[in-house]
Amino acid sequence: MHYFSYQKKELYCEEVPLSFLAKKFGTPLYVYSKKTILEHFYKIKKAFSEIHPLICYSLKANSNLSILKLLVKEGGGLDIVSGGELFRARVINCPPKKIVYASVGKKEEEIKEAIDYRILLFNVESERELIRINLIAQEKKKKVDVALRINPDIKTFTHKYITTAEKETKFGIDIKTAKKIFSLRSNFPYINISGLHIHIGSQITKSTPFIKAIKKTLPLIEEAKKAKINLRYFNIGGGLGIVYNRERPQTAEEFAKKVLPLLKETGLKIILEPGRFIVGNAGVLLTQVLYIKDTPFKRFIIVDAAMNDLIRPALYGGYHKIVPVRKLQIANYRLQIKKKADVVGSICETSDFLGKDRKLNVEEKDYLAILGCGAYGFSMSSNYNSRPRAGEVLVDKDKVFLIRERETYNDLIRKEKINEVL
Amino acid sequence: MHYFSYQKKELYCEEVPLSFLAKKFGTPLYVYSKKTILEHFYKIKKAFSEIHPLICYSLKANSNLSILKLLVKEGGGLDIVSGGELFRARVINCPPKKIVYASVGKKEEEIKEAIDYRILLFNVESERELIRINLIAQEKKKKVDVALRINPDIKTFTHKYITTAEKETKFGIDIKTAKKIFSLRSNFPYINISGLHIHIGSQITKSTPFIKAIKKTLPLIEEAKKAKINLRYFNIGGGLGIVYNRERPQTAEEFAKKVLPLLKETGLKIILEPGRFIVGNAGVLLTQVLYIKDTPFKRFIIVDAAMNDLIRPALYGGYHKIVPVRKLQIANYRLQIKKKADVVGSICETSDFLGKDRKLNVEEKDYLAILGCGAYGFSMSSNYNSRPRAGEVLVDKDKVFLIRERETYNDLIRKEKINEVL
Repeated sequence: MHYFSYQKKELYCEEVPLSFLAKKFGTPLYVYSKKTILEHFYKIKKAFSEIHPLICYSLKANSNLSILKLLVKEGGGLDIVSGGELFRARVINCPPKKIVYASVGKKEEEIKEAIDYRILLFNVESERELIRINLIAQEKKKKVDVALRINPDIKTFTHKYITTAEKETKFGIDIKTAKKIFSLRSNFPYINISGLHIHIGSQITKSTPFIKAIKKTLPLIEEAKKAKINLRYFNIGGGLGIVYNRERPQTAEEFAKKVLPLLKETGLKIILEPGRFIVGNAGVLLTQVLYIKDTPFKRFIIVDAAMNDLIRPALYGGYHKIVPVRKLQIANYRLQIKKKADVVGSICETSDFLGKDRKLNVEEKDYLAILGCGAYGFSMSSNYNSRPRAGEVLVDKDKVFLIRERETYNDLIRKEKINEVL
Repeated sequence: MHYFSYQKKELYCEEVPLSFLAKKFGTPLYVYSKKTILEHFYKIKKAFSEIHPLICYSLKANSNLSILKLLVKEGGGLDIVSGGELFRARVINCPPKKIVYASVGKKEEEIKEAIDYRILLFNVESERELIRINLIAQEKKKKVDVALRINPDIKTFTHKYITTAEKETKFGIDIKTAKKIFSLRSNFPYINISGLHIHIGSQITKSTPFIKAIKKTLPLIEEAKKAKINLRYFNIGGGLGIVYNRERPQTAEEFAKKVLPLLKETGLKIILEPGRFIVGNAGVLLTQVLYIKDTPFKRFIIVDAAMNDLIRPALYGGYHKIVPVRKLQIANYRLQIKKKADVVGSICETSDFLGKDRKLNVEEKDYLAILGCGAYGFSMSSNYNSRPRAGEVLVDKDKVFLIRERETYNDLIRKEKINEVL
């Protein structure tokens, strides 16, 4: 569900025609719909309303400050994974007690910053990390709340790069080790084990793996009780799949129905970490057709967006619908042969494609919208081939906010120094 | 061949211990050896010395201004692929007649800038592009030199993402269409067809595909003569493979020996576009071990570099040797069990690995050097997970130059704007 739709052959974001934005701000351009973001947030909130969970938006999906501010203003918290993300949370004044921090590689400096900001919970990924946090907490003479991130060893049937709960992955603590930690908790006097955390992966369209993971974790909650550990939180992570193409993911409501009985049983405060679910379909990447290249073997639609702007197709084989911003008139439309084409960028690699074998009736200089680019779009973008990164725009009904300026050539070299001695 | 070597258990870049650089500038840090860069450049220059080729360094491999300046000072030219790369070439005052510009998606503005700077040649990738350049040249009342990039339809047996000369790829002009363009050249009165260009891919370790591609292109040179087209340049691109692991690529000399007879036959000025060959092994990525995580199933060495710093392993399955910056003392060394470990970053994705199943005897806080990171390392790096990008250092004997400052948290949000209305 999203608010990108055609009105008389013209694609709009809410009440603003995308062609207007493309002309005003240039392309490639990320465009987000405020209404879509908030509706997704409220869908989760409503589905879980019985238990009033803390919804910590997973900001790695899209870390633009304006989007964070939007969600925090509505009562959301943040799921962070680095010092840089903590910095972002602080810039928009996210209440510290709504921040949870997961990462297999938290640096000392990052741990210190997070303790000083008094975040709600560290999601601890290893025994070594527990030792390190305990040590830093001791130096600071503060007691620190943590949740143990449990690796429940579950198959998720998603792309191998975004599954995170199989035992072979680097994430979390296996159940046996978690029990050991319970029994050794007196070794960590500056730590409160206040919760358990699971996060099984990303773009998961069925509830089964979630249920399996939760069921595998529930006995640990009992174990904790027996060990007189006062758990207060159960963080079931994120990973809800969205529609990119023909997926039929469970709705938030269906998902909630399935997992609520299990969650209520725990009596713990539930934390959710949706990312893609909230922003994934709330953004498009606008791009202009530079050339239509017909070779004897293939048609290529060469556009001004490229793998540096959107790496999901190259990295994960990610599928994104690509649609014209202005549909051609029906009369012309019928005349044209719809030839399958690869939509590609101008980067000098074969991996630089945005879509393969698409039927698109377009001409040079037309604008295209690449859908489903709100999550893991801009946040993964780079300057490869010395391409300045795209601008980002947020639309609120008929209002338009430039929330990140397009980079300039000068931005590319801002941190570089030419030494005359060389 | 490179100048990263151990002296008494301590890894040096030329005359500087890497541990010194790691401490001085922090990690992750890219470190380049000037001597290695220049030696590779001179290897090519020497191998082809009979024909005095124009060596245009392919700057997408590593676009740091100091490295460009170094090579241009030695007489090298630049192979650019975007307006941003042209900007870089201008910043270091690269002589325009040493610049060639390839890209399947040159924008009007980029074409104009390149014409104004009077670059040597556009490597034209399609008939549509030829039409566009002709039009812009006409407006500017200038005659523009181009080389036709020929797609010779050659299998290169490299990673599917970096092969660029099969007919199914977006690159270049097929031979039949090239002939058509010869015959229609009166349609392009503002264009001189001055050369032919081929570029068959990247990290190619054998000369056979190069020879095949050249042989397939030679008849076109004859065709051009017949059509009274005055060709002056034959650009055979780049793509020479380097040693990452156990590859045994041809040396520059071996390569030259094979192709020189063919090239001399043409009587044309030869252009070469080496990138990886020059800088690939001239750089390492320095990183610190954050945690050693032993799960019941696997050992993970969690380091402070990640896929945002180096995406080659995740994107291409690229292999990089990983070695300790300081070897443990033999006494301890023998005692330790060398257990295979995955070297991973702290990014919340399973794709975030730098090496798999490596035997490494390291402890937390030790430094590691990831070898072969001079090409497609920093230039593909991103801010994913809100991670500031690494610094870059160039070593010249015992001298050290910080050629790019590490990014700060503030750099992450420099272009963002929080609108209070939201």
